[in-house]
Amino acid sequence: MKAHTEYLVFETPERRALVNVTEKLGAIVAKSKIKEGMCLVSAMHITAGIWVNDEESGLKQDLMDWLERLAPVADYRHHRTGEDNGDAHLKRTILGHQALLPVTNGALDLGPWEQVFYAEFDGRRRKRVVVKVMGE
Amino acid sequence: MKAHTEYLVFETPERRALVNVTEKLGAIVAKSKIKEGMCLVSAMHITAGIWVNDEESGLKQDLMDWLERLAPVADYRHHRTGEDNGDAHLKRTILGHQALLPVTNGALDLGPWEQVFYAEFDGRRRKRVVVKVMGE
Amino acid sequence: MKAHTEYLVFETPERRALVNVTEKLGAIVAKSKIKEGMCLVSAMHITAGIWVNDEESGLKQDLMDWLERLAPVADYRHHRTGEDNGDAHLKRTILGHQALLPVTNGALDLGPWEQVFYAEFDGRRRKRVVVKVMGE
Repeated sequence: MKAHTEYLVFETPERRALVNVTEKLGAIVAKSKIKEGMCLVSAMHITAGIWVNDEESGLKQDLMDWLERLAPVADYRHHRTGEDNGDAHLKRTILGHQALLPVTNGALDLGPWEQVFYAEFDGRRRKRVVVKVMGE
Repeated sequence: MKAHTEYLVFETPERRALVNVTEKLGAIVAKSKIKEGMCLVSAMHITAGIWVNDEESGLKQDLMDWLERLAPVADYRHHRTGEDNGDAHLKRTILGHQALLPVTNGALDLGPWEQVFYAEFDGRRRKRVVVKVMGE
Repeated sequence: MKAHTEYLVFETPERRALVNVTEKLGAIVAKSKIKEGMCLVSAMHITAGIWVNDEESGLKQDLMDWLERLAPVADYRHHRTGEDNGDAHLKRTILGHQALLPVTNGALDLGPWEQVFYAEFDGRRRKRVVVKVMGE
């Protein structure tokens, strides 16, 4: 069994952003030389998530609007600590914070439209995502 | 380490459906001959998901009604592309699109009521789910 | 490849609770002697979930209030079976029921604020969580 670990670093200029990381993940899998296994992608900061969906600008805006409707910017108890990002913690909770991608024949085994996004809800600061490929 | 990969194919007659795949997954794990490991089940199309919950008809209807309330059929930006399935992308986002099932003593290690469902939100077309068992 | 499996048992005095299990998981990883791999944490009962977020009391209350808003206690079809926990099945669906934690250098590879919680939505009864560490 082999394991290969890398960390992606993000510092988005906007507070909220969707960054397509599919190519980066494919390159990490290639570098790992793992032929059969799984690739974990997990946001290490608790106001960011991972979204597997479509690279389509309208849908990406739909997602952000919809998350704002379900988990709006508001006055949360969490803000008594001095923070102002309560909504970001909840938005990431709906979205999920990780994905596990199958690796088959040395490449990500994704469906025809599956793209993997880093979803930032409280950006403008340095944040990390762990990528761990495991297999043989 | 061993890995065993199969693809389930669905083409539901209804646009929305919940299909219990627990038995099929158990059979794949048995075929893999893996005794200790993990079984990934992941929808390869971005308007479908995986739900781990109860095989109870009332609850399944409750789930579908509730998803419609949170992510209703509506006029999404995504529809400018000619699609009409914006709600399906969002419904699958709430539900999640994958599950990782532990394999112990050569079988799925599930709780007493855990059942695994393929959740279709834009059916009537051919779609795939990847199942990868990894372990020893 | 090695695999190490343990089961955590919960019987919370309250119907709803968030229990921080990060230390327990760290101890299981240490006991497994696995240096590189992944640790699956998965609720085996379908009215409980796993949440990876912040150990901050205000935020934890925000989460519970928000889940009640999105998936309220109400009269669900599921209750025709004699159950009264329809909301708990839906709350766990938003939250997710599992997390996969990377193991690097023999320890959980978590971000600075990542804490792992067992989320109970229908407690006062004995429930289990499976923890499986896999790697080398």
